[in-house]
Amino acid sequence: MSKPEYVEIVEKVFNETKEKPTKEFKYVGKHVVRWDAISKLTGKPIYTADFIRLLKNPVFVYSVRSRYAHAWIKSIDVSEAARYPGVVRVITSRDIPGINDVGYVLPDQPLIADRKVRYIGDTVALVVAESLENARDAGERVHVDYEPLEVFIDPLKIVEWNGLREKPHTLIHDERGSDILSRYKIRVGNIDEAFRNASVIVENEYRTPMQEHAYLEPEAAIAIPEPDGGVTIYAKTQCPFDTRRAVSNVLGLPFNMVRVIAPALGGGFGGAEDVGNEIAAKAALAAMYTKRPAVVLHTREESIIGHTKRHPMIARYRHAAKRDGTLLGVEAEIVLDTGAYASLGPFVGWRAIVHSTGPYKVYNAKVDLAVVYTNRVPAGAFRGFGNPQVTFAVERQMDILAEELGIDPVEIRLRNALRPGDRTVHGQLLDHGVGLVEAIERAVELSKWHEKRKLYSQISGSMRRGIGIAVFYHGNSIGAEGADYSSATIIIQRDGSILFRTGLTDMGQGSIQGLVNIAAEILGVPPNYFKVELPDTASTPDSGPTVASRSTAMGGNATLVAAYKLRRRLNELASSMLGCKSPEDVVIDAPKVYCRDDPGHHITWKELVEQAFWKGVPLQEFGYYRAPPAEWHEETGTGQPYFTYTYGAIVSDVEVDMETGVVRVKEAVTVYDIGRVINRTGAEHHGVGGYLQGMGYALMEDTYHSPDGHVYNTNLSTYHIPTGMDIPERIIVDFVEAGYIRAPFGAKGLGEPSIVGIAPSIANAVAHALRSKEAAREVARIPLTPDYVYGIIKRHGLLR
Amino acid sequence: MSKPEYVEIVEKVFNETKEKPTKEFKYVGKHVVRWDAISKLTGKPIYTADFIRLLKNPVFVYSVRSRYAHAWIKSIDVSEAARYPGVVRVITSRDIPGINDVGYVLPDQPLIADRKVRYIGDTVALVVAESLENARDAGERVHVDYEPLEVFIDPLKIVEWNGLREKPHTLIHDERGSDILSRYKIRVGNIDEAFRNASVIVENEYRTPMQEHAYLEPEAAIAIPEPDGGVTIYAKTQCPFDTRRAVSNVLGLPFNMVRVIAPALGGGFGGAEDVGNEIAAKAALAAMYTKRPAVVLHTREESIIGHTKRHPMIARYRHAAKRDGTLLGVEAEIVLDTGAYASLGPFVGWRAIVHSTGPYKVYNAKVDLAVVYTNRVPAGAFRGFGNPQVTFAVERQMDILAEELGIDPVEIRLRNALRPGDRTVHGQLLDHGVGLVEAIERAVELSKWHEKRKLYSQISGSMRRGIGIAVFYHGNSIGAEGADYSSATIIIQRDGSILFRTGLTDMGQGSIQGLVNIAAEILGVPPNYFKVELPDTASTPDSGPTVASRSTAMGGNATLVAAYKLRRRLNELASSMLGCKSPEDVVIDAPKVYCRDDPGHHITWKELVEQAFWKGVPLQEFGYYRAPPAEWHEETGTGQPYFTYTYGAIVSDVEVDMETGVVRVKEAVTVYDIGRVINRTGAEHHGVGGYLQGMGYALMEDTYHSPDGHVYNTNLSTYHIPTGMDIPERIIVDFVEAGYIRAPFGAKGLGEPSIVGIAPSIANAVAHALRSKEAAREVARIPLTPDYVYGIIKRHGLLR
Repeated sequence: MSKPEYVEIVEKVFNETKEKPTKEFKYVGKHVVRWDAISKLTGKPIYTADFIRLLKNPVFVYSVRSRYAHAWIKSIDVSEAARYPGVVRVITSRDIPGINDVGYVLPDQPLIADRKVRYIGDTVALVVAESLENARDAGERVHVDYEPLEVFIDPLKIVEWNGLREKPHTLIHDERGSDILSRYKIRVGNIDEAFRNASVIVENEYRTPMQEHAYLEPEAAIAIPEPDGGVTIYAKTQCPFDTRRAVSNVLGLPFNMVRVIAPALGGGFGGAEDVGNEIAAKAALAAMYTKRPAVVLHTREESIIGHTKRHPMIARYRHAAKRDGTLLGVEAEIVLDTGAYASLGPFVGWRAIVHSTGPYKVYNAKVDLAVVYTNRVPAGAFRGFGNPQVTFAVERQMDILAEELGIDPVEIRLRNALRPGDRTVHGQLLDHGVGLVEAIERAVELSKWHEKRKLYSQISGSMRRGIGIAVFYHGNSIGAEGADYSSATIIIQRDGSILFRTGLTDMGQGSIQGLVNIAAEILGVPPNYFKVELPDTASTPDSGPTVASRSTAMGGNATLVAAYKLRRRLNELASSMLGCKSPEDVVIDAPKVYCRDDPGHHITWKELVEQAFWKGVPLQEFGYYRAPPAEWHEETGTGQPYFTYTYGAIVSDVEVDMETGVVRVKEAVTVYDIGRVINRTGAEHHGVGGYLQGMGYALMEDTYHSPDGHVYNTNLSTYHIPTGMDIPERIIVDFVEAGYIRAPFGAKGLGEPSIVGIAPSIANAVAHALRSKEAAREVARIPLTPDYVYGIIKRHGLLR
Repeated sequence: MSKPEYVEIVEKVFNETKEKPTKEFKYVGKHVVRWDAISKLTGKPIYTADFIRLLKNPVFVYSVRSRYAHAWIKSIDVSEAARYPGVVRVITSRDIPGINDVGYVLPDQPLIADRKVRYIGDTVALVVAESLENARDAGERVHVDYEPLEVFIDPLKIVEWNGLREKPHTLIHDERGSDILSRYKIRVGNIDEAFRNASVIVENEYRTPMQEHAYLEPEAAIAIPEPDGGVTIYAKTQCPFDTRRAVSNVLGLPFNMVRVIAPALGGGFGGAEDVGNEIAAKAALAAMYTKRPAVVLHTREESIIGHTKRHPMIARYRHAAKRDGTLLGVEAEIVLDTGAYASLGPFVGWRAIVHSTGPYKVYNAKVDLAVVYTNRVPAGAFRGFGNPQVTFAVERQMDILAEELGIDPVEIRLRNALRPGDRTVHGQLLDHGVGLVEAIERAVELSKWHEKRKLYSQISGSMRRGIGIAVFYHGNSIGAEGADYSSATIIIQRDGSILFRTGLTDMGQGSIQGLVNIAAEILGVPPNYFKVELPDTASTPDSGPTVASRSTAMGGNATLVAAYKLRRRLNELASSMLGCKSPEDVVIDAPKVYCRDDPGHHITWKELVEQAFWKGVPLQEFGYYRAPPAEWHEETGTGQPYFTYTYGAIVSDVEVDMETGVVRVKEAVTVYDIGRVINRTGAEHHGVGGYLQGMGYALMEDTYHSPDGHVYNTNLSTYHIPTGMDIPERIIVDFVEAGYIRAPFGAKGLGEPSIVGIAPSIANAVAHALRSKEAAREVARIPLTPDYVYGIIKRHGLLR
């Protein structure tokens, strides 16, 4: 098959602009205020829950959840609840007209539990009532007869080291016959020979926590029954098309009878993937049965129990290196805990194994990874998606190796870092923009690494300082995991104003403003000419999910293609109106349009658009883009897992209070190779936001389960995230621009990457501050809470 | 410029299918139940006013209208009204942030009168209150100090015959300096010589009434203020993009900040063009000022006073013919009364002059037409748009001429009818499908014309019978009047279901089902796979207005183009999946897809669609189509006014009660050349509906004004339209299919055409029944109400 036109367009624009410095662009790479900034800053009602007060005569849906983390359901009696004042209807699994499943990638998760419960968030019934209070109170009167089963909180009760074999146990997913959800491996080179030839081998065990997304906005969904038997849903969801699919399945309706609109999201981070489907389906069921608008609205407690988390990891790593620090081989066993249901576990596991040896030249590797079920809250998508976990382990290993060899941590990374022309561990040739070394060098310079590393090594006493570096790479978009396409819609209106639509959501990350910048640059009109419409499955083609740092690269390509096609037509028209030498000679700098060699003689953008209406020039375009096909060989863990990678280097500068174990980040430098900065404001904010969420991951966050599977910290009073008081004095965010030809102006993703390297950089800094090789080995677990750090200090007698 | 791809596609499909009998199509030309039939028959809430009960905390907007048909406004005092209980706000012209104008084609019509009122429907203030009752009561307390002016009801007080010069008078539109809105003329051949050479000359004066659309659903609009300062509007409007433009102008917002959604319309007929804009702008103003959802809801009285009507015509015609009936020349002066405001008057006048000599070979013509202001309710768009008026006159002239020459009315028409290869009066070569003669012959046959004509001529006594024929042509779409484009959107969903969108509205005419049939035929999937979404300016590209019988031809072309592009891509994919000889060899007959020569081996439609998602085949398309450029020479009335014409012949068989003057249609035959039947159900219903509305026009309908400009018959109890009791015993609807290459499968429009020839066919039948050459001359005015017909009978002593 010949190269599709959309690929030709993307490559042509890249080639024509690759030498152009970002500062010479008109809108791309500039500080542009996002379209919804004013609405957000002035508290306008733009979130799903804001819309509830617009509803007349709504019903409210409360999810009655399981009392046990693992139990058979012997019977459910809803009769008392159904009689409770204000209750309109009680819905159980028997009432589901379609398929009782909301599993994201596997059908393993009932919307309403029928046979069995597998975690304390499992829904056993929905109470639909006149008020949320009524529904909640009535929910207490749903009587379920359970037969409790053994509860599994520790994945090492399910699998064992040295082969990750499944242990005999009471199966959580008896219907699957195994509680190992997925296995992946890498088999590259000759690992035994590598370790035989090693000058040094370091080995350690690492643990990372079950992080909670802790977004500002708890979940909300509103379902409105339509006269034709369909349903319209407003929901907090990252992926409206996935939500639609889930609701369609549950209701047994074709896709075009279910309309999902995604209002502004108060944060997503991956957490609004599954739960969006679940709440939408619950609201839709209630709307269908009551013929009234139905509302699902979670409290923070329900949110924390009810949505997926970051997969906790337990891993054993062995690194082999030569005397000069050159890596010879990496061996690892990795266990990811997916909790009660698969969610995106298989894909998280896959991304973890892809990145499991770090952004280094590693040509001998043996890695095994298992994703296992437990009775914890399910783990699913979370910014980084498996990569922060393995990068934490790899980057601690690199520091331990450096220390072992007496090499500077920067030095050992530069020695092994992937450079243009290298191949990854999977054998993928990096034939384009690899800005890792440049990022490391920039981060070293901006952080004054060498001066500080030397200085801090001399500080003793109760307030220590440490500086640490971590580097990483992150595959862009879905890769070999799924059908990787996107789309965007641009419609120029007759007055010259423009509508922009995509099915990708803006969950606060602001990437949609980046898409507008791309369209603005191509068309030659300012970003404020554009109105961004809400994602709406009835108005927007499927744009693929808003995940995997794919909005800018994938959505950006789709946007660029749409804008380019429009621009091409408008150039032709303008050229004929103005008498330019050729259509390429037309300059659009709205409101002016002129020939390049005669700027004095111009027409207006509005006149050009009006002529298009008269002359039969269509002013609407669907932009579409499909990623180059990825490949993955299951048996070896080789192939081309992603079409491109974002690279980064992070330096964290910390203070450790040796008397309390409290770690504070004082300063940080983050340098990311994102190919091309598209919206500088957004990119910089990503750097800061990613840093802070990574800092929470490093220092304070975990979802703690009791042995019987209850979550201890179900509110933000007990689940601690960084506050304003925790913010470092300075976070420098800078960019390297090693562009990728099949990306809009070369731009790569930053959403996920901006968290990947944070925790290890902080942990490495803490290890540095402790200044004890033995103690440093114990900086192998996050979060580095004061009690844990103090424990290390105490055990090793570091405070003298 | 080379031929655009969209033209190539339309022509290719036409050429490939032109020989294919309609019965061999799969969906085109079949009786297909329209997508919304069930919702409508079961009374589902789908109309704008149905949505009011979904609103929480709405305000209601009442329009305080003028007490005079013509007066200066000296002052307006709203203070008492503003204090009235329940009143939230009173809005006058001073509160309009943008432009105080809702003129459709000229800026001559304030939304809220400021300086002057020009008819009794002029709005002088808007009262916004908690209920419609509050608002209405408070409206009584708006005090306006008027200075009354002379009221003009008769356009012959404005212009005079023999040149249509303006008479000196108190100007209604003093700001324009003239009350003649537009003038048109035809100057072809040598009219003096034609009349010198004539064997016979007939001359008469004709009058047609101000018909009211009398649609089922009175006007309603809901405006919802948006958090970003924009507004979303649900309104009864035929033309959502025009409504958006009007609201944008009034609010001073760019187009993309105003979103207009058109729910199901309970009838339009052209009447929901201006008024949709006006009510939407009123609701939007109220929403903006109150920050609450605002409702405008008209009673039938407000509807009749508040929306435009059919232009009344007064015309003098002279026809010259040879002894054998061959037309030698036509001379005419035509006055159209546009009432207080222009509305679409200039375009109605233009369409009237284009059609003013009928579907005949006329090569000597001198026609003058003036559109003049009066103080009546404004006249605007109404099914037929100037053509029913002139066709009434022309077709009565033809019958009088036939009688004068002793030729059968069918014979004289066949002698002069336009045939393929002829030129119209404008010099336009009819180089494609002209089915007029075939239509006449078919109508004659189906109606048993010759037998009945002979038989009825022998009946005397008090119950007479008459049979009459009328023929006509009707230019499709906007023609030289405006930018003539359309668009449609098809998005195939991942489960194979399909979304269809267009900005064209379905006002009950059902043409959107025709578009679905076209897409279904091209794609090879049944119509019930499609969901038709509402027209929505934020989701649909501008499709042009839903007027001028352009939905099927223009919207159909856009739909065909979208479907064709999708089909082309799907054929390629299916061919590679199935291993067909070539993509053209792929048969899609959803749910099956197979190679033509191997029907046994198939994949499913759903599988094909799923593969498209994996392989990077975009499944969304905007279809766009621009009509061939039209031309019009103002000085001569020549050119190519329309790209194609619908033709028709109607035979009406009536009974005249000579003792009461009551006329009843007993049977009717209508035969239309519409190029290709697209949805047979819809086409047949158009034939019936058009007949009945034309019968009302012929026999009972007029909007009667008192000398001071008040309307006498402001409700359906006094404004009479045909009821079930008036329906003829039989209406035969049949079709000729003389296709047009630049139309979807050759299809031409039927919406307007189906009313054009009705009134003259009935009038000709009445004239026949009277059997008096002298009395027949007086059958020159419609409506032929019992009192008018009885007057003729009495004056001529016909009942002996």
